Amino acid sequence: MTDLERLLADLVIANRILSRENVVDAYGHISVRHPHNPARYLLARSLSPERVVQADIMEFDLDGTPVGGDTRQPYLERFIHGAVYEARPEAVAVVHAHAEDVLPFGITSAPLRPVIHSGSFMGEQVPVWDIRERFGDTNLLVTNMAQGRDLTKTLSTHSVALMRGHGFVAAARSLIEVVRMSVYVPRNARVQMAAMQLGAVKPLSRGEIEARNAGYKPHSPETRRAWEYWAIRAGCRELLEKE
Amino acid sequence: MTDLERLLADLVIANRILSRENVVDAYGHISVRHPHNPARYLLARSLSPERVVQADIMEFDLDGTPVGGDTRQPYLERFIHGAVYEARPEAVAVVHAHAEDVLPFGITSAPLRPVIHSGSFMGEQVPVWDIRERFGDTNLLVTNMAQGRDLTKTLSTHSVALMRGHGFVAAARSLIEVVRMSVYVPRNARVQMAAMQLGAVKPLSRGEIEARNAGYKPHSPETRRAWEYWAIRAGCRELLEKE
Amino acid sequence: MTDLERLLADLVIANRILSRENVVDAYGHISVRHPHNPARYLLARSLSPERVVQADIMEFDLDGTPVGGDTRQPYLERFIHGAVYEARPEAVAVVHAHAEDVLPFGITSAPLRPVIHSGSFMGEQVPVWDIRERFGDTNLLVTNMAQGRDLTKTLSTHSVALMRGHGFVAAARSLIEVVRMSVYVPRNARVQMAAMQLGAVKPLSRGEIEARNAGYKPHSPETRRAWEYWAIRAGCRELLEKE
Amino acid sequence: MTDLERLLADLVIANRILSRENVVDAYGHISVRHPHNPARYLLARSLSPERVVQADIMEFDLDGTPVGGDTRQPYLERFIHGAVYEARPEAVAVVHAHAEDVLPFGITSAPLRPVIHSGSFMGEQVPVWDIRERFGDTNLLVTNMAQGRDLTKTLSTHSVALMRGHGFVAAARSLIEVVRMSVYVPRNARVQMAAMQLGAVKPLSRGEIEARNAGYKPHSPETRRAWEYWAIRAGCRELLEKE
Repeated sequence: MTDLERLLADLVIANRILSRENVVDAYGHISVRHPHNPARYLLARSLSPERVVQADIMEFDLDGTPVGGDTRQPYLERFIHGAVYEARPEAVAVVHAHAEDVLPFGITSAPLRPVIHSGSFMGEQVPVWDIRERFGDTNLLVTNMAQGRDLTKTLSTHSVALMRGHGFVAAARSLIEVVRMSVYVPRNARVQMAAMQLGAVKPLSRGEIEARNAGYKPHSPETRRAWEYWAIRAGCRELLEKE
Repeated sequence: MTDLERLLADLVIANRILSRENVVDAYGHISVRHPHNPARYLLARSLSPERVVQADIMEFDLDGTPVGGDTRQPYLERFIHGAVYEARPEAVAVVHAHAEDVLPFGITSAPLRPVIHSGSFMGEQVPVWDIRERFGDTNLLVTNMAQGRDLTKTLSTHSVALMRGHGFVAAARSLIEVVRMSVYVPRNARVQMAAMQLGAVKPLSRGEIEARNAGYKPHSPETRRAWEYWAIRAGCRELLEKE
Repeated sequence: MTDLERLLADLVIANRILSRENVVDAYGHISVRHPHNPARYLLARSLSPERVVQADIMEFDLDGTPVGGDTRQPYLERFIHGAVYEARPEAVAVVHAHAEDVLPFGITSAPLRPVIHSGSFMGEQVPVWDIRERFGDTNLLVTNMAQGRDLTKTLSTHSVALMRGHGFVAAARSLIEVVRMSVYVPRNARVQMAAMQLGAVKPLSRGEIEARNAGYKPHSPETRRAWEYWAIRAGCRELLEKE
Repeated sequence: MTDLERLLADLVIANRILSRENVVDAYGHISVRHPHNPARYLLARSLSPERVVQADIMEFDLDGTPVGGDTRQPYLERFIHGAVYEARPEAVAVVHAHAEDVLPFGITSAPLRPVIHSGSFMGEQVPVWDIRERFGDTNLLVTNMAQGRDLTKTLSTHSVALMRGHGFVAAARSLIEVVRMSVYVPRNARVQMAAMQLGAVKPLSRGEIEARNAGYKPHSPETRRAWEYWAIRAGCRELLEKE
């Protein structure tokens, strides 16, 4: 199995995990930058993540044009992915999803903050992007590069940005890392919401967030443990790398 | 397969989806207008939606009389469906259900509002019908045409109306659309409830609701994607139209 | 199949439904009065309801003594059942459970009220029994007839009583009815809790509660529909009465 | 089957129960003191609890050193277990987990209190440990004996301690007891959170907590009933002791 084949298998696994863990339903998607060409990314055709297999993966230029004349129906919102890869050279994987439990923080002025250790990877601040500010009344979807770039401007150097009334975008250095954030950011949101009903909430300190980031290794046994756990729950045991 | 057969298969799928997605339990029902006779509608006999198969579908006149001397037990509340089809010529599909998460908005004065993009199809306002206003103390069920017509008056031109202490009615131009609303209106309600605990909530603007409605196509790949996702989750892969 | 055999099969089904619908876990139990001897009741031996089969059903005198020298381990709290049958000649079935969502109403002074039509069968008032008032510091369990009778005094003519820090007891005229209450009282509690966060809550009126009670028939097609739905979900299709 | 083999089988069951009941996901672990050598404990290698089988169990000295030159990857936070066994001679089993519903109580000043009878085993007080007080900005994980001992100082003679922004530790006299606490402490937290929205909350009295502790027997039929129920739900029927 080549590196590219391994990455494609992992992208399929990632699609299934996001579905099994309720980060996505029929909507929402995950991409990875092409390992041999940083000006391209890999993303499934327009299909529910739960149903994605390797043959469904398409290749795109950063502006969202399918490579090689591929005429299959792409996701309408693929521009989110390209805009992030364009602006953030270090970004290797991107998720856009509508996970229910983060949505309240996008439609109020209560800031989403890391309050549990597994939420630290969202960083100290999670900005909120409102498509209306620059594009007026739209259907809220990111359907061109101008919108994608505007979202990316709000995302800036952050790991996660909320999209008002819509969902979130997350960017990371690996598929494992972006999947992990996509699962734990909603958990952090649930815990924070409950805690806010109990009184003043103690978030993680900046130093704690930095200490966790400094120690994070995408290929550590601890990180791998979660990936395998989620993959098996999602029915992807056969797709996992042999140990 | 004729058009009518396809529609019956889709109605079975819709019944199963509503059950799988917790919109209905043993109670609640979905109908579709007869494609060849707008003065009739198709609705299962009195049966839990999860158990409905094609042979369970009955045909009714708009006043709720079974067609062709069909003596099977109908749903007590079928009058909801007929009253909507009578008042709204453009309506093609109707759901009545007791989805738990919309119920709080029917028993308080807090208005249910579209706050997430997938909730936009409920429209800017969701009226609340209280059977008690005109019919006094009842068992809350809509068991005759007078009650159905009174509900329909409150529904007016809206897509969804809440029924105080009971549930909701939704009307749409297709089965896919009414199923989609029935799944996403409770999600919108959950997000709104959580957000209201965090502070002032930003709903979708009128312009955004209109932009989403203007762009909606019941047969677009995006709409179809959700239908297939829900159908497969509900165990109905075999009933889906071949691609 | 004799009437008694049918009733035993239904009691097994009821056990499994309560487990499947999260009314009970390893704890909680359901009984039925003996159809041929009103001074006895039928209740499983000490076993998780999910695992109960017909051979596990024991017969008890109203004071909790096993009939016929049956030496199997009975539930510690069987006295709840006998005390209700003793005080309420019309009662045919009793549930005691710890359903999580009713517990908040037993430890605060907020009264649980019927706010949705399916919650009407709890009646206008749901009293709260506190074992501590008469028995001081105990392990909170009802382990003798004196405690059972004290609970029954609080239950009085109501359908449901909450037990502070512990759970609830429900009494009804049939197994179907008591199962239905046990499933819908927690749902009513969830809806009421959410609604109380939104503002003032409109409960069902006394007249509506009475209208629903007046029209209730334990063998109507509507009631039967829910029983079959829950039984099939609980894996008990084979145990259902042939239609 | 020797006593040690029985205990190892029970430790596997306990791992699976904690996963099935959502106390742990890929993270979190459960140990038991070695029955023949109180200066050692048994704990799985670094693996998701859901996947643990008997061959994955390692043996550790109290300071966290693997016994017999076992070179497999251990859990980073195993020091929690050793520190508890060191400080608490009566402790036989320890759980560390991140159960979502207890987390809000670790990041606010609202004290977690036993409010339902099944929560009584957490005792009257649940202290909160903040790693930052003594160790400053860390990644929040307990990765050495000094941190484990500091946590144990906060745990003191309590059954459960919360860890700010991270999770909890629970200690008990048997595997059954620590599993039971790990399942019911989050339930107690959910009930308490909901009740706090309704008004002032009545916790269990000190006398009730003591009465429940006094009457608790780890091998009673009632305790055994829950263990079997959870084990069967977790797919471990074959691993259960033959009755």
